[in-house]
Amino acid sequence: MTDHGPTGATVFIGQKPTMTYVFQVVSQLNSGAGPVVVKARGNAIGKAVDVVEVVRRRFLEGQVSLGTIVIDTERLVNREGREANVSSIAIPLSRTGPAPGGSAAISSPPPPSESSRH
Amino acid sequence: MTDHGPTGATVFIGQKPTMTYVFQVVSQLNSGAGPVVVKARGNAIGKAVDVVEVVRRRFLEGQVSLGTIVIDTERLVNREGREANVSSIAIPLSRTGPAPGGSAAISSPPPPSESSRH
Repeated sequence: MTDHGPTGATVFIGQKPTMTYVFQVVSQLNSGAGPVVVKARGNAIGKAVDVVEVVRRRFLEGQVSLGTIVIDTERLVNREGREANVSSIAIPLSRTGPAPGGSAAISSPPPPSESSRH
Repeated sequence: MTDHGPTGATVFIGQKPTMTYVFQVVSQLNSGAGPVVVKARGNAIGKAVDVVEVVRRRFLEGQVSLGTIVIDTERLVNREGREANVSSIAIPLSRTGPAPGGSAAISSPPPPSESSRH
């Protein structure tokens, strides 16, 4: 899932294969829409770290920088109506060079087809 | 597992229950031996975040601060002799107030019995 905020996109890590999210993050960073925040909760936290590591070491080596990683606790209500604490992580990634498309539109969102292609 | 370096202790997160590591980290922080770094690889990364969140929100609320979280990739050789990349995380925790023991010996390691009690 990809959300567009005023300063960039958020990619939420879920049950899909790691590479699905890797391509989402690379696509977002290449679109020139600004920084991307990779977010995950609970069991998906390890996968979020995998996604960021594959992006910055294999696909965009030397072209991205990590921001400050934030961990937190979210209080959720499960299906039985009970509250449960779940850990979360947010990992910001920014391009250190210009996007390959050459577009200088850093603050404008990409066309809708970009985020739904993968 | 707990290692003592010159500037504090490292707690490696593995297969044991989350609370086992929570008690290790709290014990280390209470011993006055300096900052504690919680480290994990692969599947244990989510548990490392859980451990830190339980320590700083339940057991030592308002008494610890998070340092800069570092993620990395380690190249391991598995049992078949093939190389595999594994993500890792390191989360530093420091006490913001004095340890309850009242000991001012911030730089001296705790007695051996402290780290093997749990």
